[in-house]
Amino acid sequence: MAATDPRPRRLTALRRLLRDQDLDALLVTHLPNIRYLTGFTGTAAQLVVSAHACLLVVDFRYVQQATREAPHCTLVQAHGAGFEDAAVEAVLLSQSKRLGFESGHLSYYDHGRLEVRLGKAVRLVPSGGEVERLRLIKDATEIEALRTASRLTREAIEEVLAQLRVGDSEAAIASRLEARFRETSLEGAAFDTLVASGERSAQIHARVSPHAVRQGEMLLIDCGASYRGYKADMSRTVMPGGASKRFAEIEGAVREALDAVIAAIRPGASLGGLDAIARQALAEHGLEDAFLHGLGHGIGLEVHEEPWLAPCEEGTLEAGMTIAVEPGVYLEGWGGVRLEETILVTPKGCEVLTQRPRASKVPGVLSL
Amino acid sequence: MAATDPRPRRLTALRRLLRDQDLDALLVTHLPNIRYLTGFTGTAAQLVVSAHACLLVVDFRYVQQATREAPHCTLVQAHGAGFEDAAVEAVLLSQSKRLGFESGHLSYYDHGRLEVRLGKAVRLVPSGGEVERLRLIKDATEIEALRTASRLTREAIEEVLAQLRVGDSEAAIASRLEARFRETSLEGAAFDTLVASGERSAQIHARVSPHAVRQGEMLLIDCGASYRGYKADMSRTVMPGGASKRFAEIEGAVREALDAVIAAIRPGASLGGLDAIARQALAEHGLEDAFLHGLGHGIGLEVHEEPWLAPCEEGTLEAGMTIAVEPGVYLEGWGGVRLEETILVTPKGCEVLTQRPRASKVPGVLSL
Repeated sequence: MAATDPRPRRLTALRRLLRDQDLDALLVTHLPNIRYLTGFTGTAAQLVVSAHACLLVVDFRYVQQATREAPHCTLVQAHGAGFEDAAVEAVLLSQSKRLGFESGHLSYYDHGRLEVRLGKAVRLVPSGGEVERLRLIKDATEIEALRTASRLTREAIEEVLAQLRVGDSEAAIASRLEARFRETSLEGAAFDTLVASGERSAQIHARVSPHAVRQGEMLLIDCGASYRGYKADMSRTVMPGGASKRFAEIEGAVREALDAVIAAIRPGASLGGLDAIARQALAEHGLEDAFLHGLGHGIGLEVHEEPWLAPCEEGTLEAGMTIAVEPGVYLEGWGGVRLEETILVTPKGCEVLTQRPRASKVPGVLSL
Repeated sequence: MAATDPRPRRLTALRRLLRDQDLDALLVTHLPNIRYLTGFTGTAAQLVVSAHACLLVVDFRYVQQATREAPHCTLVQAHGAGFEDAAVEAVLLSQSKRLGFESGHLSYYDHGRLEVRLGKAVRLVPSGGEVERLRLIKDATEIEALRTASRLTREAIEEVLAQLRVGDSEAAIASRLEARFRETSLEGAAFDTLVASGERSAQIHARVSPHAVRQGEMLLIDCGASYRGYKADMSRTVMPGGASKRFAEIEGAVREALDAVIAAIRPGASLGGLDAIARQALAEHGLEDAFLHGLGHGIGLEVHEEPWLAPCEEGTLEAGMTIAVEPGVYLEGWGGVRLEETILVTPKGCEVLTQRPRASKVPGVLSL
């Protein structure tokens, strides 16, 4: 954590949202939300936040770690297989009558069990989205982590592209990226690394294959490092051994779309409007029908989170949001070209976190 | 898929279970279950299985892949952000009146939406566990995949241990394992690789650090490859540069516990009884209080699945189950030793999938 611990402020902001809904407490079951509020990084936990209490439920494996990572919380240790008993204990300790729960992150089964166990003393109120709303605007600690994750991602892609040879397999390329993420960020890849060559690059979710990249074949890389839980997301498409005319044209069109979007990113820009800017740029090359997905997504503790940049989205950007912008053109039987950057919305525009800072640009280095 | 496609048999078995519960169909929302029944390997899908239909809901990204991977299914394409419309369409196409759903794998929110959308024509019946029950006993196709995942895991650990030097960092060791998994299995690591040295090996869920392994420090590795979706899980603990007396004693005790369990694994063996055998073996060295977790877990399409090998478990093993057995001793301030194998229960005993086949044992090779 940075010098100024952001967690008390986050908890205060959440408590305000709970008061607005007349909730005495919120049962938080979505792990990224628990991490955001408490700092706990383990793989299993539940959290009860009330006006005065912050009760973190963990099992024996995580007691020491939770004590160290989540000093603002009172720990409730789960015994046995599930968290049911301990979660009930935490709710009772919080003395809540109206308990919100994250309805998109609690199973029908777990909700039913909890309802039976809590009985009539506690009213369970479907809720959720409160912590996600707070997470939309990144604070200084988060921006620093996102900046680092983005830099590590860019450096890994730069290095791998600089070493790339015709004949390298998709699996070997993915393996180099992931090894580098693991060694630089310790946490490794933020999501399943995508390396697809030739026609397979037109598959939006292609899986890594043993295929060796041939001369004149395109290569699409989509990957990201995770640093302190924060993810980066970056894509590049290249044609090792020299770009064909068709490839250069399409890559140029996608780059124009990306640049047009970046130029338009600022607080107040409409999410659907940015998507339309990318589509318009591609339409000038007759490629609008080949852009098969939305323009992008928020990114932070999760690779895909709010806000969504897509045709029907009515919201607007705010300073402090981080987004991944990824225009692409997919032509079946030929291949796909996608370019993606992780971007911070600043008060006056944006900062492309996955690009080399302009000031320190080294002359002669391969420009991505 | 192997020469004999196992999917029709799996679907028939599931339909029998549904009939026993008077269900017209089951809405399957747990992805490993969908993969098991259909072969679809994408990251988002829903499935409706009725007596006569098998309807797979996917979004545009996966239409081609689903057509190729899941030829037994009728595809229903989701439009827009969620699967709600398409899932409702699939349920109506199945003409079900009583629709089971996987209550542990459908959120409270999604259940509520579905209930509203389906109205009174369809009764939603909390269910789940049917597909997991089928998945308990692995068929020939699955056993082959588990055998391969286990062999790739063992070979990676053997190679990394053979190259291990005092001064290697945990991150570098993890990176070598993961690079090897990616290149041999294409799918990479089955779960977050654990490499913990020195005292940190006593943390059951330690995360990889930049710490360099020193002379006289123990090193715990817990990792696994994924092959065709099937996972392996294997742990080894070593002391590079020569084992201390204390380490050798404790490693020997854990090995005795593991060997005692392996000798007792056969159809009919009690899950809790096997756990007790490990505890008894450790008790003979006064180490029973240092074995802080259950003995093990089932493994297959998920790293952790049924059956659970733990003190209170009353079930018994059956031929065709695959389990990960992982006795360990954790002494705070000193370190932890864990040994783990992925094991197939055979009609007469077991086959340790993560050990080198006896017949082909190469003399002189480091014995794990």
